This record gives sequence, C-alpha cells and structure tokens, in this order.
Amino acid sequence: MNTDLRPGTEFDLVRRLLARWRDRADGIGDDGVVLFGLDGGKTVISTDASVENVHFRRDWLEPREIGYRATAAALSDLAAMAASPLAILLALTIPESWKADVDAIADGIGEAAEQSGARIVGGDLSEGRDLAIVVTVIGTAERTLTRSGARVGDRVYVTGRLGGPGAAVAALTNGRRPSRDERQRFAHPIPRIREAQWLAAHGATAGTDVSDGLVADLENIAVASGHGIVLDLDRVPVMASVSSRDAAASGEEYELAITASNALDTKVFEAEFGVPLTEIGKVDDGNRGVVTFENGVEVKPPAGYVHFT
Amino acid sequence: MNTDLRPGTEFDLVRRLLARWRDRADGIGDDGVVLFGLDGGKTVISTDASVENVHFRRDWLEPREIGYRATAAALSDLAAMAASPLAILLALTIPESWKADVDAIADGIGEAAEQSGARIVGGDLSEGRDLAIVVTVIGTAERTLTRSGARVGDRVYVTGRLGGPGAAVAALTNGRRPSRDERQRFAHPIPRIREAQWLAAHGATAGTDVSDGLVADLENIAVASGHGIVLDLDRVPVMASVSSRDAAASGEEYELAITASNALDTKVFEAEFGVPLTEIGKVDDGNRGVVTFENGVEVKPPAGYVHFT
Repeated sequence: MNTDLRPGTEFDLVRRLLARWRDRADGIGDDGVVLFGLDGGKTVISTDASVENVHFRRDWLEPREIGYRATAAALSDLAAMAASPLAILLALTIPESWKADVDAIADGIGEAAEQSGARIVGGDLSEGRDLAIVVTVIGTAERTLTRSGARVGDRVYVTGRLGGPGAAVAALTNGRRPSRDERQRFAHPIPRIREAQWLAAHGATAGTDVSDGLVADLENIAVASGHGIVLDLDRVPVMASVSSRDAAASGEEYELAITASNALDTKVFEAEFGVPLTEIGKVDDGNRGVVTFENGVEVKPPAGYVHFT
Repeated sequence: MNTDLRPGTEFDLVRRLLARWRDRADGIGDDGVVLFGLDGGKTVISTDASVENVHFRRDWLEPREIGYRATAAALSDLAAMAASPLAILLALTIPESWKADVDAIADGIGEAAEQSGARIVGGDLSEGRDLAIVVTVIGTAERTLTRSGARVGDRVYVTGRLGGPGAAVAALTNGRRPSRDERQRFAHPIPRIREAQWLAAHGATAGTDVSDGLVADLENIAVASGHGIVLDLDRVPVMASVSSRDAAASGEEYELAITASNALDTKVFEAEFGVPLTEIGKVDDGNRGVVTFENGVEVKPPAGYVHFT
C-alpha cells in the first residue's frame, strides 16, 4: 500500500479509502500498476458499472451494501469465466452528497475483495452528479468457461435458488418491504467463484452468470453456441413464495447458469459449497434460442431485465 | 469480434459500437475476456474516468474528440509507466440525449485505440444522467517507469511544449475562442507511448504524465521518491503566448515529466519523435517537494489543477 501521496483533497480521499482497505489495497500511487501473479494460466478481465438510479437506488440499500454489491457484480463476471480473482481497479464517481458515506462504501468494496481473495490495486476518483462505481476485475483461469461452448445434448444447470432479487426489487418499487431472505439476496449476492471452478473441472462446457435473468442469460449461451436451449420452468429452483416464471426473469442473481456434457453430481456440489445445483433443461439443435416448458407444454418465455429501453 | 449477441436494444448499441470499431475490437461477447499477448514482460493496468461537466463540457468538444480524449488520457497512464498498450475495456454511461452521438464517440475511441496499437476487448454499457467514459487500459513493459525512482542529482525533463490545454480551458471558460493550436492540444492530446519507452531505455529513473499540471505531477515524483525537485520555470517549454507559470500549471497535457540519471540526447529524441525534450530542473535532497525558480529567484509554485475542491 503506497501512501506516499502529495497533500490535497483528492489525495485525502484516497488516503481515507486506503485506511479502510489496509492490506487489502496494494501498489496504489503510480499512474498505472504492475500486476503480479498472472503466471498461473489465462488472464481474464472484465469491467462492470454500478450507477445510482440505474443499477441501484440510494434509499434501497446501505452505502456499505452499494459498495459490496458493485464489486460482487464485477467479480461474478470472473466467476462466470471460471477465473480466480487477482486484482480490482475502481473508478469511483463521488458526488458531494455521498462524501460522508465513502468509508462505508469502501468497507463494502473491501468486504467483496476480501471474500474473493483479490487485492485493490488502483483506481481513479471523480466528482459527478450521481454515484458511480466502475469495477474492473482481473483474474486467472487454468480453464475458462465461455458462452459459446454448449453442444447439442448438453444438460443445463443453475446454482442457488432464483427469484430473491427480482422479488426484492418488485417489493421496493411498490413501497413494500421485501422479506429478509429476498432482501439479502438482492443486497448481498455471492459471486460463485469456487463453484465455477468446480463446474469447469467437472464437465461444464459453457457458462454465464445470471445477471439479466435466467432466460435472458441462457439466451446468450444459446446464441453464442449456435444451438437451442429447452428450459423446464417447473425445475427452476426458486426462493419461497416466488413463482418459477418470476424466478426465471429475476436479474442480478449472480448465480451460475452452465451447460455440461455429462450428469453432474449435484449432491457432492451442494455438500461442498452449501448451495444447490439443479438440472433445469437441455441443449438441442433448435434455432429459436431458449424455449420454455411448463407442465410439459411450451409457454412464452418470461421476459428478463432489458437494459436501454 | 464476436457479434453473436442476442436481440435487444442494449445489444443493438453494442453492435453499433462494434460496427464502428471493426477489427479494432476483439473477443467481445462473454462475461469477461481472455487476454493474450501478456508474455512480453510486466503487465501494467490503469483505469481513468472522463465524466461530463467534470472532465469535459459538451459545448467545448465534438463527440469524436470526447471519445478520443477519454481514451488518450487513459493510454497516457500506460505511457507514464513506459508500457506498450495491448487492450482497452470501456464502461460507457450513455444518457438518452447522447445516443445520437454514440457513433462519433466510438470513432474517437477507435482512433485513440488504433494510434496506440491496442484492441478494444470488452466493456459495459449503462444509462445515466451524464455521459461517462471509463477506460481501463492494459499493457506490457520490459522496464517500467514509476514515480518513486528519482535519485538525488537526477536531471528533470519534460516532453512537448506546455500550456495549450490550460490556455484553451481558460479561453473557453471566459467565452473566448482558443487559438487553433491551443484547442488542438486540448482536444487531441497524444499519449507519448513510444517516447516513454525511449526514455526508459536511455536512463530515465522516474516518470509520470502531466495530467494535473507540471508542478503538481513533479510533486508526485518528489514525494514518492522522497527527494526534492528544483524546477527552473524559465526553462519550461511553452506554447506561443503562454507564460511559463501558466504552462507549469496547465493540466491534461499528457506530456511526460521524467527524471534521468544522465544527460539525455534531446536532439536525437526530437529527431526521432518530432517532439521536443527539455531539461527543466534537477532532483536534490530538499524536503519541500517541488521548489520553483524564476530569473534565479525562488518563487511561489504555480498551482496545478486540484480535484475535489
């Protein structure tokens, strides 16, 4: 952690952040940072923005949760590729009205970093009208999962139980209080980092994280792989009181949706990680993307979260 | 360039960007991207945000210039480390009112990428109230320049002629039209990538780019290196009609300020790059950061751009 920074208000803010992160931060203080530890396989990188009133609302989350969630969302992209997080860079836009919350935001970022084993190695601070947290994550993978590897006949699996974040957002939007479990899934998602590595090592052929909604994210795999996916809505694992249609449309889950060339041992997976792994469909030679079945009948797919509309 | 993206308005925007970038973009379409080409030395990474009404004003620049400048500013951080740009990731926050300018912004980003040899390998798109372009750059370096390497007795050099961006901003702020040259230096800075590598190979001991103003950026080197810097304002190379005090405070120059253990051949440098290299001071054992002299007399250092005030 380099604290040899010249005096000045911007640097005071940097020092405040570094004081929160302590040994979790590393090497900050140059124009760029030299990354070490990249020798262990392929290098994977991703960037993810969390913007106030677009990705979150101030009155829905604690500052610490906002920092945690933005970082966890970015780390989930590494999980989707079955990569091991190594380093985090942050571009923070901090309006005056958020200055008092910087320590709490930093603590949330630090918590997600700590959980993943990644270090915070650099960043950039700006003013602006809305809080924005842009998180760039770098990791390594011996064997990456991509969206394009699904083959006809593969089974489709998903981790966890879906629907919590969607139900929480629906409640908050309508001025209701979400259940404790739903709120927790929304405010404190867990990137499935080790789970993804297990899946990649046990036959997964393609993978993604569930960020836009299960159907929408499986559609990415279907299109990238050039095959169809048949999704059995009845088998989608749901949180209590959430319908399978709502669960299959719920975004920001940060669970994993994968295809695998063989049957996976879901019991071993759950025993290892404390998270269910559920078979929910199969890859076929269809050309209509994801088709959904309910009670054995094809039904219109539930719509996921669509950006830019 | 992966264009196997499912239908949808966000993906339409991605497709628009990819159409502008053509072969300059590479590998986009997964949750993260696998980086190739990192075997040639140390890996250097940096992230840099350009936010509307903080780093630029819409009425001061063309959309293409805004895209170019944001990307060039980030690439300049790699130059400061003497790294060779390899890959660019973008987090773009695009308000509705900017949608019509996306192609032009993309062209500016593409131009800076092309110029530097880097590929655009990934990114993230968001809505928001203000345009924001967060650029993460990755490069490699055989031999990096950092801020902490200056030693007592080193000479201090700067590339280019300073003052253009500061003069342009002063004119624009006061409703005047900047000169053509000043405006060009403001709107179209050139990251000194190859220049930095030459300097690192010819005796540079520390380096940074001039982003906050020469004095402020030299202060970073002084503090990180634990020494003083004596800056001779009379020797600061200036653009026509700019005073040396204003030149030494002008930010967003994206020139290089370095220290070197030996005299550098400024003629060879200028012949090679078409850019002047000027000796402007020396590193001493002082403990007051940067001290400035004018006509042989110590004077108050000109203030650089200070963020967060």
